Amino acid sequence: MMFIENGGVTSPKGFRASAGYAGIGDDKQKGDIALIASTVVGNAAAVYTKNKVKAAHIGVMKNHLVGGMAQAIICNSGNANTCTMNGTEIAQRTCEIVGRELDIDPVFVLPASTGVIGVEMRIAPFENTIPELCENLSKENGTAAAKAIMTTDTKPKEAAVSFICGGRECVLGAVTKGSGMIHINMGTMLSFMTTDAAISAELLQKALDEEIPDSYNQVTIDGDTSTNDTLVIIANGEAGNVIVDREGADYDSFRVALHEMSVFMAREIAGDGEGCTKLIQAHVKNAPGKEQARVISRSIISSDLVKTAIFGEDANWGRVLCAIGYAPCDFSVINVDVDLSSKAGSIPVCRGSMAVGFDEELAAEILKEEEVDIEVDLHNGDEEAFAWGCDLTYDYVKINGEYRT
Amino acid sequence: MMFIENGGVTSPKGFRASAGYAGIGDDKQKGDIALIASTVVGNAAAVYTKNKVKAAHIGVMKNHLVGGMAQAIICNSGNANTCTMNGTEIAQRTCEIVGRELDIDPVFVLPASTGVIGVEMRIAPFENTIPELCENLSKENGTAAAKAIMTTDTKPKEAAVSFICGGRECVLGAVTKGSGMIHINMGTMLSFMTTDAAISAELLQKALDEEIPDSYNQVTIDGDTSTNDTLVIIANGEAGNVIVDREGADYDSFRVALHEMSVFMAREIAGDGEGCTKLIQAHVKNAPGKEQARVISRSIISSDLVKTAIFGEDANWGRVLCAIGYAPCDFSVINVDVDLSSKAGSIPVCRGSMAVGFDEELAAEILKEEEVDIEVDLHNGDEEAFAWGCDLTYDYVKINGEYRT
Repeated sequence: MMFIENGGVTSPKGFRASAGYAGIGDDKQKGDIALIASTVVGNAAAVYTKNKVKAAHIGVMKNHLVGGMAQAIICNSGNANTCTMNGTEIAQRTCEIVGRELDIDPVFVLPASTGVIGVEMRIAPFENTIPELCENLSKENGTAAAKAIMTTDTKPKEAAVSFICGGRECVLGAVTKGSGMIHINMGTMLSFMTTDAAISAELLQKALDEEIPDSYNQVTIDGDTSTNDTLVIIANGEAGNVIVDREGADYDSFRVALHEMSVFMAREIAGDGEGCTKLIQAHVKNAPGKEQARVISRSIISSDLVKTAIFGEDANWGRVLCAIGYAPCDFSVINVDVDLSSKAGSIPVCRGSMAVGFDEELAAEILKEEEVDIEVDLHNGDEEAFAWGCDLTYDYVKINGEYRT
Repeated sequence: MMFIENGGVTSPKGFRASAGYAGIGDDKQKGDIALIASTVVGNAAAVYTKNKVKAAHIGVMKNHLVGGMAQAIICNSGNANTCTMNGTEIAQRTCEIVGRELDIDPVFVLPASTGVIGVEMRIAPFENTIPELCENLSKENGTAAAKAIMTTDTKPKEAAVSFICGGRECVLGAVTKGSGMIHINMGTMLSFMTTDAAISAELLQKALDEEIPDSYNQVTIDGDTSTNDTLVIIANGEAGNVIVDREGADYDSFRVALHEMSVFMAREIAGDGEGCTKLIQAHVKNAPGKEQARVISRSIISSDLVKTAIFGEDANWGRVLCAIGYAPCDFSVINVDVDLSSKAGSIPVCRGSMAVGFDEELAAEILKEEEVDIEVDLHNGDEEAFAWGCDLTYDYVKINGEYRT
């Protein structure tokens, strides 16, 4: 398993992408519509937001994935197509247009939207743009697609990893958008993955369901679970491996690739949280259970007080203890150790749930780095988990006080 | 039941207060230590934080309240006495000093602390200050006490209400501190209530347990449940009413006074949240159950995205729908109405979970006010609840990026 330099969603064999500007969003240069398509139909699986208020695309995507197959993903930014009267119709029509232009069954097209909630959609921008998107599909447009689906992201998020499966070299590519309204409970933003490995839809779904709790669901930017969160993967089999349709070494190899990719994207999303200056990783170890470790690590990176302290480069570990203490699960807080670490070093700030004297200057040096790790040892079991978040800054307030208008 | 002008914790008969500066905090003028005392021992009850990491004062207070009686409250700001090696000893010693100076049993003294977590406490500041505090006890020092317990609060929070109980006019007074690390799950800050009504400790506890879920537990500033949250009430019987020791008209009269006071304080706390410019009230009606109404209203005022939108005076109701949708309870989101209202007027922004056209200028006028109400009708039952929070501002980030250092 290794990352491919400058890899992305078009790195796997048979996948191409294109991007354009449909006038839905307001940044012509960035674009607001992207198409990702495989040359052949593939197996597919997806996971969605647990928010009760759901984007219209989610219902349509679920219907289209009943058969576990897909060939293309069409995604717009600038409008979430959520709480809209005509949302489902627009999402369906969009798939029909893509199907017509690519000459494939519309049921193999998966729609997705991100942006502002509650603004009516029109079909015209899709009608006007999709024919050109279909014409322009190419291997070179992965980054353009990654940019077009961004909202408040400051940079495109894409990667690809290669892995061996059934004796063949396979590739897993991904593109993701994050930035705001991001919290556990599926829980991702939009993330589209492509692979040329041949693998059954059942195992794709199983792999996603296994993977999500330890990567995408461990990311929090602002505690808000979006209405649109969607992760979808299409496996087109173009790598020529014997299809992976049961658990075993090949499935494990795919799982490792999926895990590495998912953690990479989780960190990318957290590190590019709205207005953030630092990626915060919480690592909770020696917890009584896996789920407790997950919940406690999320509680830490979800705390506005921890987030502002890290922004202020202040080793205010009492807020970490506080966030551990209100994590909603059973465990003991009588013997908690906390270390702060980064590229600049590591420092114990709490031992046995009590204050320990530490060098404030060294702590400040550690907190100056762009990634800060909060290491927690509960001495209360042997399970561990990671969670990823970011600091809470003036710019988060600025971005979200002014986002819609 | 009516509010008393300039009322506070010393308004009930037999209660006095004093305040001073012990050198624990860093604002000499504001002070950092307060004493509230009754001339006679009273019945008492308390509720505490549900955070697993608890301030040392909580264990001591619980022990002292086993008998359901108390006469004095001693409270410092500037140091939370949490995660400290000697915390319990300091809290006990503090009560002993107060007991010695007031010539009362130390078990009738209740300690409380608020401030930074994880900094060792010393007994000397208490030794040096308490004798003078005991000498200076007076009816006039209620506001001084209210100021001395503040941390990042911008103003003291105190009030008193009069009510009729057992044919006598009784008074309920209260002082509260709020501002940060404030979230449901008991959930208050520090709040001390005094009343000259005679009422049994059992009924005091019952009244608190009934009242908390609809007032103090419906306040969120930042989603962080403090390690120190404590609400305590002492009833000294000096009003001369026949003791309230069973449910009935007199208990109901006390409950009304307690409810009005608690809602008043909940709004005071929310309206003075760290860095805030606006009080936000969420009112959820026609929910399938009381608890759902509470959870959904809290979800709205807890959302960083709703909070920043209100700060930006942006009628971004999609974020309200989003926050409703991820509230962790069962209800239907198919027919949700949302109105925004304030002194400047009221405007429907969502009907049947869909966008409705509205006058953006009028909406902006409404959001300019210092209190903004978000009115939600779920059309899914007949229960309602209120929750209170505040906007998320640059100053919240500033205050909490710089608090400890």
